[in-house]
Amino acid sequence: MSKGSGVKGTDETGPSRRQLLMGGLAAGAGLAAGGLAARSAAAGGEKLITEIQDWNRYLGPGVDEQPYGAPSAHESHVVRRNVAWLTADPKSSVNFTPLHELDGIITPNGLCFERHHGGIAEIAPADHRLMIHGLVETPLVFTMEDLRRFPRENHVYFLECAANSGMEWRGAQLNGCQYTHGMVHCVMYTGVRLQHLLEEAGLRTNARWLLAEGADASAMTRSIPLEKALDDCLVAFSMNGEALRPEQGYPLRLVVPGWEGNMWLKWLRRLEVGDQPWHQREETSKYTDLLADGTARRFTWQMDVKSVITSPSPQKPVTHGRGPLVVSGLAWSGGGRIARVDVSIDGGRNWRTARLDGPSFTKALHRFYLDLDWDGSELLLQSRAIDEHGFVQPTKNELRAVRGENSIYHNNGIQTWHVKADGTSENVEVS
Amino acid sequence: MSKGSGVKGTDETGPSRRQLLMGGLAAGAGLAAGGLAARSAAAGGEKLITEIQDWNRYLGPGVDEQPYGAPSAHESHVVRRNVAWLTADPKSSVNFTPLHELDGIITPNGLCFERHHGGIAEIAPADHRLMIHGLVETPLVFTMEDLRRFPRENHVYFLECAANSGMEWRGAQLNGCQYTHGMVHCVMYTGVRLQHLLEEAGLRTNARWLLAEGADASAMTRSIPLEKALDDCLVAFSMNGEALRPEQGYPLRLVVPGWEGNMWLKWLRRLEVGDQPWHQREETSKYTDLLADGTARRFTWQMDVKSVITSPSPQKPVTHGRGPLVVSGLAWSGGGRIARVDVSIDGGRNWRTARLDGPSFTKALHRFYLDLDWDGSELLLQSRAIDEHGFVQPTKNELRAVRGENSIYHNNGIQTWHVKADGTSENVEVS
Repeated sequence: MSKGSGVKGTDETGPSRRQLLMGGLAAGAGLAAGGLAARSAAAGGEKLITEIQDWNRYLGPGVDEQPYGAPSAHESHVVRRNVAWLTADPKSSVNFTPLHELDGIITPNGLCFERHHGGIAEIAPADHRLMIHGLVETPLVFTMEDLRRFPRENHVYFLECAANSGMEWRGAQLNGCQYTHGMVHCVMYTGVRLQHLLEEAGLRTNARWLLAEGADASAMTRSIPLEKALDDCLVAFSMNGEALRPEQGYPLRLVVPGWEGNMWLKWLRRLEVGDQPWHQREETSKYTDLLADGTARRFTWQMDVKSVITSPSPQKPVTHGRGPLVVSGLAWSGGGRIARVDVSIDGGRNWRTARLDGPSFTKALHRFYLDLDWDGSELLLQSRAIDEHGFVQPTKNELRAVRGENSIYHNNGIQTWHVKADGTSENVEVS
Repeated sequence: MSKGSGVKGTDETGPSRRQLLMGGLAAGAGLAAGGLAARSAAAGGEKLITEIQDWNRYLGPGVDEQPYGAPSAHESHVVRRNVAWLTADPKSSVNFTPLHELDGIITPNGLCFERHHGGIAEIAPADHRLMIHGLVETPLVFTMEDLRRFPRENHVYFLECAANSGMEWRGAQLNGCQYTHGMVHCVMYTGVRLQHLLEEAGLRTNARWLLAEGADASAMTRSIPLEKALDDCLVAFSMNGEALRPEQGYPLRLVVPGWEGNMWLKWLRRLEVGDQPWHQREETSKYTDLLADGTARRFTWQMDVKSVITSPSPQKPVTHGRGPLVVSGLAWSGGGRIARVDVSIDGGRNWRTARLDGPSFTKALHRFYLDLDWDGSELLLQSRAIDEHGFVQPTKNELRAVRGENSIYHNNGIQTWHVKADGTSENVEVS
């Protein structure tokens, strides 16, 4: 049952303390979950570790060696990955969060997916400014220090690119949840309510919209309705406790909870208040949803209720035999909290309720598990999320019936992994 | 009011779009909080940024450059720091979390303080085992894969070294909350309830205690009462979503919520069940509290209710003038949730209630703020935490009256920063 092999030490002078201790033990036996009886794998050829391991014999590195720590060398496969053919240049491309290797709901800052339109703006924070102008009583310019003098708030939110799962509109394409669903991350933000800054400038009575602009080479812009800006938007300077990462907008980004990631302006430098939307490139030719009849859905800001099983999945095969198998996944909704997640092992014919675990925040990732007693046969694994407002994640075909297959955005369809008897999985569609 | 200076671009060909946009603006004016009127600093010599900045002119790095990201070069001062004179060797020493630079309640994995007794064990996870033996029906050995087949849970907990603030027993010593309080961190753990593993092995009726042992060069051991082990302890393999960091016990650590960090065995390899404590070195000569009369408090596991103001503080001076000042800090209790934090600006004579912000988890850090209108005069800043059971953080002198000054452990006394009119601070004591 266990696959690890023993480490060979170099001390051949006699039986070690560990040898003595482990003389009578059943190895790899600890495998009951959900009421299963314990089984001993002692007869299964398990190789006992009978000598002192090197890390127990020799002193390791001290506390002066890594002022800012890094993952173990054994975790070097846990990285963001990009797809070279996806765009003309990596400066206007995307990479993907390795969801299949993560657990819980917090994404480590170094693994949050990136999407740039002109590469990463590398900003000296002392030279950064945020300007608020337009339909305001007093146009204002803030330094970073100015912003840190306003009352702060902390919130955990997911950020999902509108194009996440976009390749799946025309059928199962990419083999792994990192690629199909990895344009999402979830961190704790610290920042100032946008409402406070707008009130400081004083909104004129005809103010209805906001244009947010980044300081990067693409000078990204998006129109945001003022109602949202005054509701729950933040101007954030920290993520997971520390300063924003450069690729996430250092030193300042707009946080637009539950709405598509493109609107969360990075390297935020300008907020213009107006009475109508600006119809910029990134909200007309891009980030609109072309329907089958040639018309386009516009201003589809909110990210719909969605989920995906992260393990097992094509990049995360089952490497053990039948018996206890932890099915793990993520669910989220731009509308609020997740109320329930269902999991099917037969392609959607039968469903059982998954166990939601860990904190439940509005507009954040939620972790779910199904603790399965796997009989070793093949599975058609699916998850289906339901949010607090009763919205249910649809099948891909239900989505296509309404929206056609022309779009790349806002695909929240149910994902299917075909888990085979050998533990490997494939991205498939069931009809 | 603002200290940033303009960036000089190289384009001298005429007024830029930004020059035009910013022609009529009051700079650095956005500074009202808590009902203060907006003030214009345009007369204060603020240098406007009037040319296009380099990061807006040139394409930046693409998505293929950093598979695992890192902080901005402008944040290179945000690091763990050790104190060379504290111990004989950095392999048996400690470094400190830069609390003064962090916000929210999540500590990024790369900044979690370290404490080692034989350096960092660098473990190959496939060769790691966890053994459970002693007063059990079936001794068991688990591989990492075995452990991942048990039901998982996610929890946010603080971890504090018993010696945190230990230098302060004999008076104000170290100038900065990184050094006085930086042996604490807070992350989201993913792991398996220890209870499940012990039930799998089957506890004998006379089982009362657990000995936990690490696989590092010091083979650290601690005795833990079974009642705690069966209550809320976890065997964790992830922190903040990814695998544990090597210096935090990769691939497996014991999580002992609310109890002193020394018991959270890193590189966990062995759990022995017994009927009494083992009285090992780290729970007799160390991690006991020598009192004034020469007797020692033993088994003082739980970390008491505590708080500290992280900004302003000696390492984080106020760099702006009078007016809105955000006082920010952390509070925690090994007994559960924080119910309230009070802040004093006059050395404990008068108190006002701070604003708790962000999620409140049991046995986790809590972030608090006091949004102050600073008149520019000097302050004696203190914070005092109260937990859900009504325990109140004592003054240092109240602690000394009961415990003397011989110990280095379990100092949860109220910390004072003397903030001067020029914005710098010092670690002081008030009587």
